[in-house]
Amino acid sequence: MKILYTQHEIKEYAVEQKKAGKLIGLVPTMGALHEGHLTLMRKAREAADIVIASVFVNPVQFGPNEDFDAYPRQFEEDCAKLEAAGVDAVFHPEPKDMYPDGFCTYVNVEGDFTKKLCGGQRPGHFRGVATVVTKLINLARADKAFFGQKDAQQVCVIRRFVEDLAIPVEINMVPIVREDSGLARSSRNMYLSATEKEAALVLSRSLRTAEKAFNDGISDVSELKRIIVNTIKEEPMAVIDYAEIYSFPGLEEISKIEGEAIMAIAVKIGKTRLIDNIILNL
Amino acid sequence: MKILYTQHEIKEYAVEQKKAGKLIGLVPTMGALHEGHLTLMRKAREAADIVIASVFVNPVQFGPNEDFDAYPRQFEEDCAKLEAAGVDAVFHPEPKDMYPDGFCTYVNVEGDFTKKLCGGQRPGHFRGVATVVTKLINLARADKAFFGQKDAQQVCVIRRFVEDLAIPVEINMVPIVREDSGLARSSRNMYLSATEKEAALVLSRSLRTAEKAFNDGISDVSELKRIIVNTIKEEPMAVIDYAEIYSFPGLEEISKIEGEAIMAIAVKIGKTRLIDNIILNL
Repeated sequence: MKILYTQHEIKEYAVEQKKAGKLIGLVPTMGALHEGHLTLMRKAREAADIVIASVFVNPVQFGPNEDFDAYPRQFEEDCAKLEAAGVDAVFHPEPKDMYPDGFCTYVNVEGDFTKKLCGGQRPGHFRGVATVVTKLINLARADKAFFGQKDAQQVCVIRRFVEDLAIPVEINMVPIVREDSGLARSSRNMYLSATEKEAALVLSRSLRTAEKAFNDGISDVSELKRIIVNTIKEEPMAVIDYAEIYSFPGLEEISKIEGEAIMAIAVKIGKTRLIDNIILNL
Repeated sequence: MKILYTQHEIKEYAVEQKKAGKLIGLVPTMGALHEGHLTLMRKAREAADIVIASVFVNPVQFGPNEDFDAYPRQFEEDCAKLEAAGVDAVFHPEPKDMYPDGFCTYVNVEGDFTKKLCGGQRPGHFRGVATVVTKLINLARADKAFFGQKDAQQVCVIRRFVEDLAIPVEINMVPIVREDSGLARSSRNMYLSATEKEAALVLSRSLRTAEKAFNDGISDVSELKRIIVNTIKEEPMAVIDYAEIYSFPGLEEISKIEGEAIMAIAVKIGKTRLIDNIILNL
């Protein structure tokens, strides 16, 4: 497995692969890899000739009071996992290489849907995501890119700018990978103590309870929201950031589930903010 | 020569050319083509296997009080000129095709240099340029793109975002083409009456007077600026929008010419705003 540390190195590698007629699959990550990421790698492995993973904690998508410094970094462990998953090359740049002096271009997705959910809680977050993902796709000459459904709003944002700017890449969304307990895999789960991890099960439990109600015939959005919120409130350690139901992928307000919809929540357990979602389809 | 009217058509055409191993050169224009544009086409013709020109008056780069509606449109004449210049395909979309409902992504170059010169006079202008040029490069799968030096700040902006976002395209700047009188070719010259056209000669005259002074050993920026401004003031019909000298391509304030520098002016002659520039090199 190749390790590429600079824009220059990844460009050279990608151009060589394209010249050889290879189809390139890209999996952008911030490292601290778990089963969710590795599932993305395996999907890319099936769908492309060459799989490039990136491991880059992108400063531009973190707010000033967020966990950029604390975000887990464990590049050697990550490399072992990526190699085992059959990844061909890892791109692992320094922030200064991606954003050198004079850098001043940002990709802004300005639709209202970017201000909802995590976009409301994390201003500037999706601008950082859109900018780095555009740059990674271009550097990797990616034909396909793979993202997890756990960051569902991120997928909506990425699909939007890829279409708007006509970026020649296919965006694939891969379902959430969960622990046996139901907890959605996340690099931030490492922040949780044993007690907090137990408490964090309320996220998936609340969504599943609402999903069951939906499957039993309840399609009224306020009723489903109430089920989610009431379930979360049963857990004393949980503080709700948001609990919303929107159309998917447009993220528009709806009062009844018709077509695709997403139930999305962000909940603080202690100091750790966790997100989860389930997509419903009527 | 192929005429492509939709994103779908140009994508199909470009993908086919790339599959056949062709090098694609793109020349974005707003139509109303003159010798300046045709020089760009010939440069592209020399440098690429396939030349795609676009003719698109881009609404997003015009301010609310600017000349979007009045901007000259003469697509049939343009096509005849493009065909004669050996262009392979013209992309001529409707605004609704480029910016359909839901479109909300913009490429923002935020550096201070975008607020100078035309950027100061035309807020939002370069955001519109960066967005449409990114989209055109992606749609055309362009390996090379060609722009005129007349819009020198535009070239600085384009080079900036192409580098920042790692867009895999080579940007070429082609020198200004002038009438025998010295007047820089521009689609907006059509707006000028015979008297105004005569008055408009003051733009190139002022720059050339300063250039001569520079060649005679004057490298002090305020002195060169004074020469430009005083020359323009000799023409009663001329109203200066700006007359500036900056480093090139960084567009930074300088007090002395060292290395590359640009003398750039925008002048209103009657209702028509004209721009011109000369790049100096010590």
